[in-house]
Amino acid sequence: MSTPVTAPDRRAAATAAELGVGARFSLHPASDDAVRVILDALAHADRDRVTVTTDDVSTLVRGTEHDVVRYVHDVLAAAGRDGTHVAAHVQLSRGCPGEVACALPDDVVLSAVAPPDLPPTGLRAAAHWALYPLDDGTPGHPGDHMRAIEQAIAVARARAAVSASHFVTRLDGDLADVLGAVADAWLAAARHVRHVVAHVTITLHSPSWAGEAAGDAAGVDR
Amino acid sequence: MSTPVTAPDRRAAATAAELGVGARFSLHPASDDAVRVILDALAHADRDRVTVTTDDVSTLVRGTEHDVVRYVHDVLAAAGRDGTHVAAHVQLSRGCPGEVACALPDDVVLSAVAPPDLPPTGLRAAAHWALYPLDDGTPGHPGDHMRAIEQAIAVARARAAVSASHFVTRLDGDLADVLGAVADAWLAAARHVRHVVAHVTITLHSPSWAGEAAGDAAGVDR
Repeated sequence: MSTPVTAPDRRAAATAAELGVGARFSLHPASDDAVRVILDALAHADRDRVTVTTDDVSTLVRGTEHDVVRYVHDVLAAAGRDGTHVAAHVQLSRGCPGEVACALPDDVVLSAVAPPDLPPTGLRAAAHWALYPLDDGTPGHPGDHMRAIEQAIAVARARAAVSASHFVTRLDGDLADVLGAVADAWLAAARHVRHVVAHVTITLHSPSWAGEAAGDAAGVDR
Repeated sequence: MSTPVTAPDRRAAATAAELGVGARFSLHPASDDAVRVILDALAHADRDRVTVTTDDVSTLVRGTEHDVVRYVHDVLAAAGRDGTHVAAHVQLSRGCPGEVACALPDDVVLSAVAPPDLPPTGLRAAAHWALYPLDDGTPGHPGDHMRAIEQAIAVARARAAVSASHFVTRLDGDLADVLGAVADAWLAAARHVRHVVAHVTITLHSPSWAGEAAGDAAGVDR
């Protein structure tokens, strides 16, 4: 499993857009002032290296894997800055098909990509994460999406606290490590599977956590 | 593709839990009063036929396909009742692996299940939907997840306005039809693929829609 890091000149032959790389995310501040919190967070993050398109449901981000993840991280970190309870849903997608008609050879799609280096935010995050390696297999070799998921969870474990749950894996840690774990695992799976999508719901400043010092760790969102 | 509807006595041999059926969802009212809106919505929906477990990130719902979708629908409809801008993220999952160690034969997992009949809510909904048919294929026949997705989109088209977008399919219509389209398509794919997961982000009472009469249909969530 030693795919060499692709040299820059070769990567240039296939853009991130051709590889179907990008993200969608939505921010949900639990506040009457939600629109302002969202606009402030979007304004705070540097979008020089990504293309950002927002509609009434979510925000689309296009760019390289590195730049897309970095932008989403910066927006979430900015949204969490003023202490408002904010939830976010993030979808990371890579590989064609799934985005564009795909005529790229596997050795381009499956090239190794270094995950972004995300600085710690000081923000506690809890997340429910799911990874979908859409591995159809080949005539001689059926796919094995559960193996790819298990490998991805091992990658995530290096960065965040991981626990199993129904339909999702729970991640706990600094926002940078939680989102970093999702991105690391997504890119690890993408070295072996052409089309890989990650979904994660992240909570910051949960009201459930306020009572924890008193021993009440149960959710209030009942 | 004429899988017969399974007789009730046969279905009884495998419970929904054994088949890995369930949902996770999170509700995000854009309100200082978000916790009350969430609690009221959860209290309003009848949970006699489902098992509901909420933590600080999302709410897990277990039961039959029919009862799980119906419960999620009822909670979302209740949350939208007072006019607050509410977003929801819903994950529907069916099939093992993905939930439990799976030793069930395909003819049980792939049995036909009738989607629930959801009454119209009068609530306009817009959604970004993605379906993941985790079809590994078999030694002789590679999977074809894009074909399963295209079939599912055709199913959804019977119920909601469908438009293609990057990484997702957009659905517009009454909340009952949008969620119904997601459920119909999920269950249609589950007749041919053992492990199928749907994700959908749904918006109700978007502030973006307020300006539409004046010709401004652009999102405010920029």
